[in-house]
Amino acid sequence: MKKVKIALLGLGNVGRGVWMILNSNKEEIMKRSGYEVEIAKILVRDKNKKRSVEVPDEIITTDFDEILEDDSIKIVVEVMGGMEPSKRYMLRCMDKKKHIVTANKMLIANAGDELFEKADEMGVMFQYEASVAGGIPIIKGIDESLTANKIEKLYGIVNGTTNYILSKMELEGADFDDVLKEAQEKGYAEADPTSDIEAFDAQYKLAILASLAFGSKIDVDNIYREGITKIEAVDMKYAKEFKMGIKLLAIAKENNGKIELRVHPTMISKKHPLSNIYDSFNAVFIKGNAVGDLMFYGRGAGDLPTGSAVVGDIVTIVRNGVDAENSNPVVKNNLWKREILSMEDIESKYYVRATVVDEPGVLSKITSILGKNNVSLRSVIQKGDEENGNVTIVLVTHKTNEKELNNSIKEIAELKSVYKINNIIRIEDLE
Amino acid sequence: MKKVKIALLGLGNVGRGVWMILNSNKEEIMKRSGYEVEIAKILVRDKNKKRSVEVPDEIITTDFDEILEDDSIKIVVEVMGGMEPSKRYMLRCMDKKKHIVTANKMLIANAGDELFEKADEMGVMFQYEASVAGGIPIIKGIDESLTANKIEKLYGIVNGTTNYILSKMELEGADFDDVLKEAQEKGYAEADPTSDIEAFDAQYKLAILASLAFGSKIDVDNIYREGITKIEAVDMKYAKEFKMGIKLLAIAKENNGKIELRVHPTMISKKHPLSNIYDSFNAVFIKGNAVGDLMFYGRGAGDLPTGSAVVGDIVTIVRNGVDAENSNPVVKNNLWKREILSMEDIESKYYVRATVVDEPGVLSKITSILGKNNVSLRSVIQKGDEENGNVTIVLVTHKTNEKELNNSIKEIAELKSVYKINNIIRIEDLE
Repeated sequence: MKKVKIALLGLGNVGRGVWMILNSNKEEIMKRSGYEVEIAKILVRDKNKKRSVEVPDEIITTDFDEILEDDSIKIVVEVMGGMEPSKRYMLRCMDKKKHIVTANKMLIANAGDELFEKADEMGVMFQYEASVAGGIPIIKGIDESLTANKIEKLYGIVNGTTNYILSKMELEGADFDDVLKEAQEKGYAEADPTSDIEAFDAQYKLAILASLAFGSKIDVDNIYREGITKIEAVDMKYAKEFKMGIKLLAIAKENNGKIELRVHPTMISKKHPLSNIYDSFNAVFIKGNAVGDLMFYGRGAGDLPTGSAVVGDIVTIVRNGVDAENSNPVVKNNLWKREILSMEDIESKYYVRATVVDEPGVLSKITSILGKNNVSLRSVIQKGDEENGNVTIVLVTHKTNEKELNNSIKEIAELKSVYKINNIIRIEDLE
Repeated sequence: MKKVKIALLGLGNVGRGVWMILNSNKEEIMKRSGYEVEIAKILVRDKNKKRSVEVPDEIITTDFDEILEDDSIKIVVEVMGGMEPSKRYMLRCMDKKKHIVTANKMLIANAGDELFEKADEMGVMFQYEASVAGGIPIIKGIDESLTANKIEKLYGIVNGTTNYILSKMELEGADFDDVLKEAQEKGYAEADPTSDIEAFDAQYKLAILASLAFGSKIDVDNIYREGITKIEAVDMKYAKEFKMGIKLLAIAKENNGKIELRVHPTMISKKHPLSNIYDSFNAVFIKGNAVGDLMFYGRGAGDLPTGSAVVGDIVTIVRNGVDAENSNPVVKNNLWKREILSMEDIESKYYVRATVVDEPGVLSKITSILGKNNVSLRSVIQKGDEENGNVTIVLVTHKTNEKELNNSIKEIAELKSVYKINNIIRIEDLE
């Protein structure tokens, strides 16, 4: 059996998964790749840290150069995360003709360009399936299987933590704060949950998916982002009344030559399969002009699911021949120049929940402002609250322009009889 | 722009899809592959047949040798279907170092071996994504993305016609015969629907999927097969009472070193995502020991979805370099020798519906036979029919051995007070 030596940069959650899979599924990987894959070195920060996997001392190192200078190591697997030193390490490894596998969404989203170009320049393979949606093969799916398509729409539930929280809120009527606390106790949410609940994580992932789907470099900062902290139990309740659910969706759409890019809580019909993705599962829904509707569903995080994607990438490289020049270009985000549609110009339906004073004529004032701004209503719910004498008004609009909606909301908020605009949630017609 | 010439064998439904995609998505395909893909020749049986796409006369031919002997044609796309002459044509094209793309499930399921070996021998690429589940990239999914996994279970809804029929029966309470007739009128079912409704089509597809998933040659005839013709509206009604749905599932499971392979109508919990795949959609659910639960969902048939898979395969070949020797082996169904578990030895839960005479003690006789055969019951429904004086008994068993279930049924059927065993449907626990 031929052998190939690889090195891991990092031995955290994903690194442990890779180690476990390469050991427990050794035979599968050998037979399928034709090679024995040996982890020759693992770079860690602290040699003495207690770990949940037993790794021989002699392969653990704190010295990156030991890996860089070892010409017998053909593939370097970056599972440290973060921007630096990950990026510098990868660039230097590629200079030494080592192939790269990475799970680093932040780095690919922000500096994919530079890494892809280096890979092309050096003729090495650069695989990053694990950077989006864990074990779901969505990168290869778009990059290799859907090449015949103009991709029209992509909707992703790509953050497990927020989907877990929203699922609990939907299915159990729970409050955001309570579910977040429970998720943190169970280890499903980080002590500092900002990256998940404020949708930075989903924003990175959308940048990666959209740049592949539309063959165009996407600047992360050009993606509109809105987290889930403002979603309340009562919004879930109203969504249910409208036969909808609320999901944090990463949305990329072709729109008259431009592209729409946004991540925000979204009301979607309970009839659409995405609305039934619960718990910490991820799913990506794609509409291509040839393939039609397509959905991928699975575990978006965790040591083994993410490790599955990493090891799959290792096998891809090994099968291609570790000593072969990679003839398949890695840079694929410069095929077109796509302009990003400004958020003001998007069209959507909207759910608006407001608290108003219980007096005659309020609804009439509100609907008159909407009408003036060309916002037409699909449904209105008005519910009095006996306790505090306030009234809740819930509006669902027909499709309208976001700027006109915003103008209306601004005017409505200034009405004396309007106590508060509690929430505005976009509604997406997935048909 | 570099150019690559290809030929189509056949210009039916799928061939038309390939033609349309290569024309309408020309720019996407050029940018993503780096090549202009030109259809240089199309083999048809009858030059004068009226077609729904406009194809220049000069590229249409009835002479296979024109394609075979043209060294400028690097890729041959077989979309004729059937065993012969498809197989002979492909073998001869590979002898001439032409790469192959095919959508032919029957041929891959029955003679994949011989074709794969020829591809390896000649160093050409052989792609068959379109042979299973149309546009869903399930072949590449298993073959390239899940290589790190021991695949434990695979459940597929891989036949659109039967899923359409069962969906109508479930959602509208319709009868099998009525829905089949309607499906035939709408063109969703063939005039002779045998291949679909008797599950031959699903059997071929399972042979292909299982042989990849388990790395072992699967003989189509070793797959247990049962169609959907016996499903009645009343069975759907009872399934609903048990919070289940009925799907035609293609099942492949690892079971103590052996594998279970079967295609049959199956009751599954409405909580599982597969139970919500409606209409003519396909879906494949996989459980891997690293990736966990994974599901692919999309259009399993149709000119454009299937064409999407075919053209995706063409791009794969082009990117790899049409003049390059393929170093990635095509034969992957000889990695292990897996024994097929006999149907008598499988374990399942069962739904049994019987019509019995309305007299005391019948249920007691039935349950006593079941008990004697180690079949224990989870639930029993007994319902009298005022009109004909008969009684319907519906039994749901706990997990039991199929042989013991069959022995019981045989004994029960012989009871004088049992008028008829109307139906037996396996229930699959997908967790």
